[in-house]
Amino acid sequence: MDELTKPFRTICVVLSLIVLCKCTKYEPNWASLDSRPLPAWYDDSKIGIFLHWGVFSVPSFKSEWFWKYWRGGNPEIVKYMDRNYRPDFTYADFAPSFTADLFNPEEWAEIFEAAGARYVVLTTKHHEGFTNWPSNHSFNWNSMDVGPKRDIVGELSTAIRKNTDIHFGVYHSMFEWFNPMFLNDQKNGFQTRNFPQLVNNYRPDVIWSDGSWLAADTYWQSPEFLAWLYNDSPVKDTVVVNDRWGNNTNCKHGGFLSCSDRYNPGKLQKRKWENAFNIDKHSWGHRRDAVLSQLMTMEEIMAQLVSTISCGGNVLINVGPTKDGRIVPIFEERLRDLGAWLKLNGEAIYSTRPWTYQNDTVTPHVCPTPTSSTRVTLLGYEGPLTWSQASTSQGINVAVPLIPFNVMPCKYAWVLKFENLA
Amino acid sequence: MDELTKPFRTICVVLSLIVLCKCTKYEPNWASLDSRPLPAWYDDSKIGIFLHWGVFSVPSFKSEWFWKYWRGGNPEIVKYMDRNYRPDFTYADFAPSFTADLFNPEEWAEIFEAAGARYVVLTTKHHEGFTNWPSNHSFNWNSMDVGPKRDIVGELSTAIRKNTDIHFGVYHSMFEWFNPMFLNDQKNGFQTRNFPQLVNNYRPDVIWSDGSWLAADTYWQSPEFLAWLYNDSPVKDTVVVNDRWGNNTNCKHGGFLSCSDRYNPGKLQKRKWENAFNIDKHSWGHRRDAVLSQLMTMEEIMAQLVSTISCGGNVLINVGPTKDGRIVPIFEERLRDLGAWLKLNGEAIYSTRPWTYQNDTVTPHVCPTPTSSTRVTLLGYEGPLTWSQASTSQGINVAVPLIPFNVMPCKYAWVLKFENLA
Amino acid sequence: MDELTKPFRTICVVLSLIVLCKCTKYEPNWASLDSRPLPAWYDDSKIGIFLHWGVFSVPSFKSEWFWKYWRGGNPEIVKYMDRNYRPDFTYADFAPSFTADLFNPEEWAEIFEAAGARYVVLTTKHHEGFTNWPSNHSFNWNSMDVGPKRDIVGELSTAIRKNTDIHFGVYHSMFEWFNPMFLNDQKNGFQTRNFPQLVNNYRPDVIWSDGSWLAADTYWQSPEFLAWLYNDSPVKDTVVVNDRWGNNTNCKHGGFLSCSDRYNPGKLQKRKWENAFNIDKHSWGHRRDAVLSQLMTMEEIMAQLVSTISCGGNVLINVGPTKDGRIVPIFEERLRDLGAWLKLNGEAIYSTRPWTYQNDTVTPHVCPTPTSSTRVTLLGYEGPLTWSQASTSQGINVAVPLIPFNVMPCKYAWVLKFENLA
Amino acid sequence: MDELTKPFRTICVVLSLIVLCKCTKYEPNWASLDSRPLPAWYDDSKIGIFLHWGVFSVPSFKSEWFWKYWRGGNPEIVKYMDRNYRPDFTYADFAPSFTADLFNPEEWAEIFEAAGARYVVLTTKHHEGFTNWPSNHSFNWNSMDVGPKRDIVGELSTAIRKNTDIHFGVYHSMFEWFNPMFLNDQKNGFQTRNFPQLVNNYRPDVIWSDGSWLAADTYWQSPEFLAWLYNDSPVKDTVVVNDRWGNNTNCKHGGFLSCSDRYNPGKLQKRKWENAFNIDKHSWGHRRDAVLSQLMTMEEIMAQLVSTISCGGNVLINVGPTKDGRIVPIFEERLRDLGAWLKLNGEAIYSTRPWTYQNDTVTPHVCPTPTSSTRVTLLGYEGPLTWSQASTSQGINVAVPLIPFNVMPCKYAWVLKFENLA
Repeated sequence: MDELTKPFRTICVVLSLIVLCKCTKYEPNWASLDSRPLPAWYDDSKIGIFLHWGVFSVPSFKSEWFWKYWRGGNPEIVKYMDRNYRPDFTYADFAPSFTADLFNPEEWAEIFEAAGARYVVLTTKHHEGFTNWPSNHSFNWNSMDVGPKRDIVGELSTAIRKNTDIHFGVYHSMFEWFNPMFLNDQKNGFQTRNFPQLVNNYRPDVIWSDGSWLAADTYWQSPEFLAWLYNDSPVKDTVVVNDRWGNNTNCKHGGFLSCSDRYNPGKLQKRKWENAFNIDKHSWGHRRDAVLSQLMTMEEIMAQLVSTISCGGNVLINVGPTKDGRIVPIFEERLRDLGAWLKLNGEAIYSTRPWTYQNDTVTPHVCPTPTSSTRVTLLGYEGPLTWSQASTSQGINVAVPLIPFNVMPCKYAWVLKFENLA
Repeated sequence: MDELTKPFRTICVVLSLIVLCKCTKYEPNWASLDSRPLPAWYDDSKIGIFLHWGVFSVPSFKSEWFWKYWRGGNPEIVKYMDRNYRPDFTYADFAPSFTADLFNPEEWAEIFEAAGARYVVLTTKHHEGFTNWPSNHSFNWNSMDVGPKRDIVGELSTAIRKNTDIHFGVYHSMFEWFNPMFLNDQKNGFQTRNFPQLVNNYRPDVIWSDGSWLAADTYWQSPEFLAWLYNDSPVKDTVVVNDRWGNNTNCKHGGFLSCSDRYNPGKLQKRKWENAFNIDKHSWGHRRDAVLSQLMTMEEIMAQLVSTISCGGNVLINVGPTKDGRIVPIFEERLRDLGAWLKLNGEAIYSTRPWTYQNDTVTPHVCPTPTSSTRVTLLGYEGPLTWSQASTSQGINVAVPLIPFNVMPCKYAWVLKFENLA
Repeated sequence: MDELTKPFRTICVVLSLIVLCKCTKYEPNWASLDSRPLPAWYDDSKIGIFLHWGVFSVPSFKSEWFWKYWRGGNPEIVKYMDRNYRPDFTYADFAPSFTADLFNPEEWAEIFEAAGARYVVLTTKHHEGFTNWPSNHSFNWNSMDVGPKRDIVGELSTAIRKNTDIHFGVYHSMFEWFNPMFLNDQKNGFQTRNFPQLVNNYRPDVIWSDGSWLAADTYWQSPEFLAWLYNDSPVKDTVVVNDRWGNNTNCKHGGFLSCSDRYNPGKLQKRKWENAFNIDKHSWGHRRDAVLSQLMTMEEIMAQLVSTISCGGNVLINVGPTKDGRIVPIFEERLRDLGAWLKLNGEAIYSTRPWTYQNDTVTPHVCPTPTSSTRVTLLGYEGPLTWSQASTSQGINVAVPLIPFNVMPCKYAWVLKFENLA
Repeated sequence: MDELTKPFRTICVVLSLIVLCKCTKYEPNWASLDSRPLPAWYDDSKIGIFLHWGVFSVPSFKSEWFWKYWRGGNPEIVKYMDRNYRPDFTYADFAPSFTADLFNPEEWAEIFEAAGARYVVLTTKHHEGFTNWPSNHSFNWNSMDVGPKRDIVGELSTAIRKNTDIHFGVYHSMFEWFNPMFLNDQKNGFQTRNFPQLVNNYRPDVIWSDGSWLAADTYWQSPEFLAWLYNDSPVKDTVVVNDRWGNNTNCKHGGFLSCSDRYNPGKLQKRKWENAFNIDKHSWGHRRDAVLSQLMTMEEIMAQLVSTISCGGNVLINVGPTKDGRIVPIFEERLRDLGAWLKLNGEAIYSTRPWTYQNDTVTPHVCPTPTSSTRVTLLGYEGPLTWSQASTSQGINVAVPLIPFNVMPCKYAWVLKFENLA
């Protein structure tokens, strides 16, 4: 079998759970904040879904950075606008077309559950500044005043919590490209405005901060916010945050490490980390101009998943809904294919902990040491596989059988389960 | 002659000018602020034009309070919206149609000059919160980001100053109906945001404040703003303000008194005052549903003008431009008719001061005392009129001639000029 | 009095009525068709109102020929479109904005009645081809399918007939600028499609044909249509038509002569004729860019009216409603001013017949011959005027009194009524 | 191997070509018209792509019959319209949003070629009446006047012919739902208008007629049109037509038989036939509300393909482009997956002729008779397979090997090739 004859990645099932005990008050400095243990649900979840949805979903062309690129003179975007819109058309003019008229949050929740996701992170405000909830601080530039005329954050969080056990999280960009109030008024501490409202209204399990690269953590007053979040907020026991809290915190401070986009270090990390990647390789938001060759295949998605989980990371798989609220069938297909795989092989993913070795290519002698009661199985395939002690001092040879096409348990990747090793 | 046989209002020409000398620093309290003499240009001007232009010019239906009335359940407006718009259409959705595509500020300036106006006051922000300039504090809800895509305040002030001697002023509403940022955040002192930008960018000669009724002057920090305006701003020597600086200042403090809309007390006031009235009796903003009978006739306009000027007030005559930037012909006609009258009779209006008596109906014996060299003329009519000493101790009888239709100097009102009285 | 000292036009009141007797069948040739006496109501009516309303009311810029001029490269229109619309915007894209959302046909009827009009002619289809009724031959290019979503012809004709005694007529352009079906398929006889539907559905009293200049009457099958109209149609006894039935019929054949636009020959004609003129001198359709100086004053309108009626013509005074269905106040004002004049002086207009002389400038000795019982009055002014026999063999001198302003009966024009002449 | 152990369908490769010789003039009756041999390219092609694109792609909801269902009171559509559009919104109002702004015909041509298609059929006019070319007979209801502002038929046919060897065909609906001109004027023979223009301008290889069910062939004058097409048109030697030429011709007369939608008789037919089916099982036009489970899987598509080709039919696989001109990735994926299969297995499809037996389930003893030089191979798999003479008088046993996953030649279906049979 093709895949199984390649060096494979090993995922070890660990059953013990760590019980957290928090007795102290966190202080607004990184030494204290970083000492907070991550709530266990996050590491156990492994699989999250990332949703980039906003006014950029209206032009739905090239990238969710459409506005920035347009203003920056990107030739393709400038040409597109010149050909299709009147001369003084602005980005704000797109907002009324963000209709969300076919947005059915219960349908979304069903897809996410079928995909095997254990958490979902929605953009509540991207760099364009448009908020997907009726923000007190974004008059006439939010989803209740313009476009959908709906509280998207509220509707989606409610549907997910009502119908599934999936955790709900919020992406939020501190920075805004072109908001003069923001640009001039940064000293008032922009994050103080939206974050508490988001936390109090929607009680997110994840706060996925972004757009902090222009200034240090002190500027954004991030430590103060996090101290409040950990000590006094209504989500203090469950919330998980990432590490983008200033231009000096990435990959260093906060909760889990998201570092850069599509972060996949290829080896174990000291702290919990996350690999956020988009199925459309060119854009996080929906792009009407996407063609099949620019989308990740299931084989590519699985490669990311296996390499990430084996090294202790979570995957946050991004899809961009359309302006009218649809997760288009190609994304639905990828997610359901993933879910079908996870249904069979989930015990190798959820709640697992990395093993001694993570990659057979890097460390060729993976060498589990068998015992007389060792049992090796292929998930989804009936009966144990035969194995023999390797000739070297430690190690095991597994006889992978030739499996007929019609009884092949799954596609993309196969899990060998070792029980009763030494 | 009909009008002249009615009791008439007397306007006395006074030629002396008061020279102002300001040597002190104003303090942020009304005693000090009220002591500032009004810059002389304002009283001399007498005739101003008021312009209500904003997003309300798009529905252009019933009133510039369209939004408020709609939300308040006004049946006509609710029915209109239900019949013509999709269910979730919002007020903000009107903004893209505020095109100003035929707005030609030089044409406007020519009309205002032809009307005989000496100052113009434009709504820079009405209660809807939309600013007619690229305000730093109204992201995506201003004339540069949405709708016109133009700096309307800038273009109009420039055109007026370049082509005419007309003074340029700005109307500004402190209050906003539905801005949650405003509603929650009033303590930051909303006026501190827009006023300095308006003053520094456009150097207005008039600041016509409105929408202050919800809170006291201290809340709005009005005294502090005015002290800065009078002491340190770039317009400190020329600017004139009204009296709407808090719910406790109307008709009491500030610059001239605007009191309530269409204020016309009918007698002399201790302080300079202004009668702001709209030609469309039902709306300050343009209304497509206006019919002729709801518009003031020239006779009605002249009655307001004469009664106001004779009692020491200024008139601020309002017209509402259309969403595309037109002053419709019926308003142009009223303004040009007014200008034609003023061209002939301006010496009875501009730079005049009220006489001892203001109204012959109220004080029947108006009694100018003639001398042997007294000369009485009808402005626009050749030659002096004959007169005789009244039988009573003081007073004069003027023989108003039967003037043929083809040599009648003007319409609406006629000015008798008395020279060399006792 | 200014106007009365100018040479004046004389309007003679004739009281006898001609009784029509139609006993023959008309044949489809001009000799026969031209022999039909015009139904008497038309000559008696004198005053009609012309309405140009269509998709051209949406751009409402420069002219109702906007489309043609745009395609023809008119620089102002091309520039306007380039600045305000996306590159591939077409004329058809204007149609959805022809909303008619404030169109109230009963209000219109009231204005027309107040104006003293005795007939109204509405454009049911202009050269753009858009029909203001649900035409069977103009799929998706009519007022029921696109824009108003209303049967405008039906609603207006119903309102006029229900509320007034005004006659209702239809303007219809045979020609269409850019309809390829029309352009290629002319041989099918385009007029056969719309005319019968119009006649059968709306029973017009006037058919004001236009756009026939590209081909002869035989091409359009006009004689055949008129023979049907006169012999067999439901309006055979009442309908009046004009003369634009082919490039060889203008000013020659049909019903009354409309000849060219603003036709005013200045002398008596052998056949009944009509002077169709627009208050906006530059456009028949509404123009947002119209300024006051381009609109006819009441004095200019009255000059047209007097010179036309005295020479036996009717006037058809045009106003262009807005895309939303308003007759703007400046037009309403002109029409009501006209109506006020007609209310006083109507006996000199309606149902009159031209006198021997029509213009005192052309024929200086108008010379009514008085008798001992002759009575001369000024309409609206109390009591007879004094007169004397002229020194020449025939003629009369009328002493026009100096009338005080406050008892002047009217403005614009004054009527001297002579009774009991020789 | 699962699939191969099921009874399989047999496809026989026949190499001889039939040379056509046409010497006679066809007459406008079915006996004559039906005698015309189908141009050989059509039967050889086997695989076509069907494209449903029109104004229905704008609402893109439920079905391309959206208009008809809406007018018919379909509750889901009525509710959708009520919630999202103003009350008087009409179907025609959708047309301006048919933008085709991302339509790239060369990209489409590349996808169709990659899919292995040998012909493409585009809807040039569906029942809505909107034509995808500047029809002379559909003023303001065609793709040049409204919406795309492009000649879609022209652009696509040009791109396909320039870049590929694919044949280009046109779908055309005779019937129109709501065109009153059509409804009243059917007697003029509606098809005479568009068909000749389509043929002369675009020279289609296929004319796929539809919407003829309301009347007989004589009504539509179909025989006359086909006689012209076969005898005198510029495509007389190459064109292929279907059988929908009147309510009495389906499955009987014309060219190939399309009978009903998704026609798949499951056995050999006397005449050439076609199975037109849509990947979206619920709609031929694009539907934004489509979910994955409503789309055909590759397994389902292959089942249709194999059962159709083996019984002598062609497949016409439908995808609905979006209003902006995209073939969305899920459709692109299906088409490219099909193309990958055909690249390997095309010799079993293109230019083949049905064998004696078509279905091993129906006729269990498929029984090819081997000879000593018989060679059996699996397409894409190296080396011949071993076989043995069946124990019965005729027949062959093939030993299908256990193929490792990594050398499996293809998915979905596998082709056994028999050479040198008896």
